[in-house]
Amino acid sequence: MTFSLAELAARVGGEVVGDGALEIERVAPLESGGPGDISFCSSKKYRLAFAASQASAVVVGQDEDVPPGRTVLRARNASLAFAKISTLFHPPALAMPGVAEQAFVHPSANVDPSAELLPFAFVGPEAVVGARCILHPGAYVGAGARLGEDCVLWPNAVVRERCTLGSRVVLAPGSVVGSDGFGFTLDMEGEGGSGPRHYKIPQVGTVVVEDDVEFGANACADRATLGATRIGRGTKIDNLVQVGHNVEVGPLCILCGQVGIAGSTKLGTGVVAGGQAGIAGHLTVEDGARLAAQCGIMSDVETGVTLMGSPAMQLREYLRVEVAMRRLPELMKRVRELEKKLEGLEGRS
Amino acid sequence: MTFSLAELAARVGGEVVGDGALEIERVAPLESGGPGDISFCSSKKYRLAFAASQASAVVVGQDEDVPPGRTVLRARNASLAFAKISTLFHPPALAMPGVAEQAFVHPSANVDPSAELLPFAFVGPEAVVGARCILHPGAYVGAGARLGEDCVLWPNAVVRERCTLGSRVVLAPGSVVGSDGFGFTLDMEGEGGSGPRHYKIPQVGTVVVEDDVEFGANACADRATLGATRIGRGTKIDNLVQVGHNVEVGPLCILCGQVGIAGSTKLGTGVVAGGQAGIAGHLTVEDGARLAAQCGIMSDVETGVTLMGSPAMQLREYLRVEVAMRRLPELMKRVRELEKKLEGLEGRS
Amino acid sequence: MTFSLAELAARVGGEVVGDGALEIERVAPLESGGPGDISFCSSKKYRLAFAASQASAVVVGQDEDVPPGRTVLRARNASLAFAKISTLFHPPALAMPGVAEQAFVHPSANVDPSAELLPFAFVGPEAVVGARCILHPGAYVGAGARLGEDCVLWPNAVVRERCTLGSRVVLAPGSVVGSDGFGFTLDMEGEGGSGPRHYKIPQVGTVVVEDDVEFGANACADRATLGATRIGRGTKIDNLVQVGHNVEVGPLCILCGQVGIAGSTKLGTGVVAGGQAGIAGHLTVEDGARLAAQCGIMSDVETGVTLMGSPAMQLREYLRVEVAMRRLPELMKRVRELEKKLEGLEGRS
Repeated sequence: MTFSLAELAARVGGEVVGDGALEIERVAPLESGGPGDISFCSSKKYRLAFAASQASAVVVGQDEDVPPGRTVLRARNASLAFAKISTLFHPPALAMPGVAEQAFVHPSANVDPSAELLPFAFVGPEAVVGARCILHPGAYVGAGARLGEDCVLWPNAVVRERCTLGSRVVLAPGSVVGSDGFGFTLDMEGEGGSGPRHYKIPQVGTVVVEDDVEFGANACADRATLGATRIGRGTKIDNLVQVGHNVEVGPLCILCGQVGIAGSTKLGTGVVAGGQAGIAGHLTVEDGARLAAQCGIMSDVETGVTLMGSPAMQLREYLRVEVAMRRLPELMKRVRELEKKLEGLEGRS
Repeated sequence: MTFSLAELAARVGGEVVGDGALEIERVAPLESGGPGDISFCSSKKYRLAFAASQASAVVVGQDEDVPPGRTVLRARNASLAFAKISTLFHPPALAMPGVAEQAFVHPSANVDPSAELLPFAFVGPEAVVGARCILHPGAYVGAGARLGEDCVLWPNAVVRERCTLGSRVVLAPGSVVGSDGFGFTLDMEGEGGSGPRHYKIPQVGTVVVEDDVEFGANACADRATLGATRIGRGTKIDNLVQVGHNVEVGPLCILCGQVGIAGSTKLGTGVVAGGQAGIAGHLTVEDGARLAAQCGIMSDVETGVTLMGSPAMQLREYLRVEVAMRRLPELMKRVRELEKKLEGLEGRS
Repeated sequence: MTFSLAELAARVGGEVVGDGALEIERVAPLESGGPGDISFCSSKKYRLAFAASQASAVVVGQDEDVPPGRTVLRARNASLAFAKISTLFHPPALAMPGVAEQAFVHPSANVDPSAELLPFAFVGPEAVVGARCILHPGAYVGAGARLGEDCVLWPNAVVRERCTLGSRVVLAPGSVVGSDGFGFTLDMEGEGGSGPRHYKIPQVGTVVVEDDVEFGANACADRATLGATRIGRGTKIDNLVQVGHNVEVGPLCILCGQVGIAGSTKLGTGVVAGGQAGIAGHLTVEDGARLAAQCGIMSDVETGVTLMGSPAMQLREYLRVEVAMRRLPELMKRVRELEKKLEGLEGRS
């Protein structure tokens, strides 16, 4: 597959500076790009790599400085333009319609004939698998679960009974939608007076995953106790993230690797949580909040604020405390010094 | 399935205030409950929701204030009563005895005829699967592993060779019991003098999981180097928790999402660890200790204490340090002020 | 299988003190060791256990004090010697050549005849599986992926398309190599002006896993956006670890449970990261750095340093700040005291 540079520019909305007839065959990083390759330069930080690059063309932003004589594709949003070019060269795999002999589909399930089921994929009773879905080996769709169109379940991804996925949802290998919420209540007497136990609260709700959501490898979203856990349209969830029961994640959120969200918490639109951030249960995090990596959120978060630390503070306060903390040993010395001097003064007076 | 309210009260041990003949068909949250539904109100926080609820009946505690004219089921432990009612309406799925044609059972394995094995479940040589167990697709029981009665292995749950589960153990999708412990020893010379390597210490022990334990999605417990890693009776483990090799978790513990416990640590009875808490190796955490979310435990923990922070402190100390830390920038200012004044005084005297 | 103690000493490079003809049948911990067992004592901490042990022989270091009359095997590196003895008694399982009837191998794949594929293992088109590899149930090798010799994929381990494993690589149950990197770019206009979305950047690179690497249960390494994510020779990765796209982990690193490494970060040789440590993206961590459990690395790390805390500090600074922090409430009191006294002095002068 090749495209002329001019064609790429037309398709992704940019402007060629240099030879638009150049044939482009591949995307490649600046460092390893060669003839026929198009690369991407996002910042002055990579200026040297750009100068040294052998790539035929480079996608740059509107105002990016460029080494003289280089062929570039200028775009308003260079990162987006390059991503779209990469998609042209690497279109997502199309479903090859059909159910492998070694897959299992319950007779009462409804699998669209355009869907692809690989060996060891499993579709349970009354489940629905939409058009052009791909179920890789070990993918599991439980009883009554429903997948929209163009979903991809990578190997060993699990959608438990009655949960629903919208369209174009991607579940990475080992991700789990609809496992039981972690709900127990202490029963001091126990079964027939046999002593204390954690009595399991039935987790009979579901998970509703809206369109264009992506789950990372081994990420989990628990089903609700009653009602539904919700993952909003276009939200992206990274590997090993934990979403507790009855959580509601709004649209367009970004949850980075190993984030944990405890039960019943609500995230608004476009919330970003950095890696390993933790959010306690029963909280509300409003639209556009930014939660730094490893932060610990223990109370409600207002629209658009940036929080850091555990327990989390607003960015400004955090930075001041952080700086002060590092100067704490010195501060202790200064206080000792003050005490000595004051003692001296008191002695004299 | 319907129950009269009086029948529910009799079954779970409560008292009806209002019409005991009311037919109840469903459990539902206060907000969405309607005619035929029974809901639950646990605290004054939900008083408005209670007042607005259309649910036919509501389970409340002994002394809970109730809007006038409402039909309620009063119980000493309202949360437990409601959980039991929910169980009545949603009894756990019963095994449908039989081995699917597409499951694999080694000829030397011993699978109780009342157990249910779904397609792609695997039972290895000499393994034992007890009465009424359910092995969902992709569930794996290794050679010589033993499951008691009424265990449920959700899709892709793994029990490696020689590990044992008691009765009524539940393994959520993707959970792993008996993976190798993380044990290596530095060998500076290496194989035939080929240079440094991490030499693998064989992990030849097992994991012993006692009755009524539950593992969350993608949670892991490693097998012991020698001997056994143990998970005590009735302990509940949430998603993505890591239990290292030779760890001993006592009975009735609660390990929330993404908790990590390093090798050889011992937890007593009823220890509670909040989300993302980490416990270093070779420690002892005594009965009833409460470890806050994200805390970092680096030394032994005494009975019943509550710890927070990383490294963890006792609750009381933590709160004082926490408050002081936030006032640190102000403290620095005050010390600067003191220094100036003192300089002034010294100049004068 | 039995060995004489002298034979063991010869094989692992040690010296017998006592009866070399003693027949050894098993390895066991000091506490449970009995006749025929060999145990291991690594430190004075276990002196009492040693004294009480019934084990026939004990492996000890060169200079270890030993209770009188005990038979020991002295070795320069006692831990390594004991590990090697344990390996003699527990050699890794050998592949039983053959492809189970219920496994799936694509006709275009190349599986070495000495490899063992258990039921429900999957090998995709053009994939290569080397000599003596073992693919347990649910293991997945995607299209064009390549495994060297003697690899073990435990149940439900996943190697996605085009990724490569060297030789003797072990993937624990549920571990995932080659899931998509977490790469999105904000597209404010969206498809046909439909509004904001996170546009997926195609993740078309691979993961290269070198020889002797081990992945823990449910650990993940994402494929690169372009190029390759790399895991260096002999690196050991514990359960639930997250390795982001385009990360390069050098040889002989140790990544403990639940560590997270964000995209494009580079680790040198022999880096050790403690449990739950987090490393931000686009950083360089040089050779031999030691990152404490739960630390948060937000800038480059130099060779050989030890870092603790979040955000991380050098060990020495961390300890001083840590101590000072705990004394902070007291410091506040002292500053208040100073202020009072100074006021008094000022009043007088």
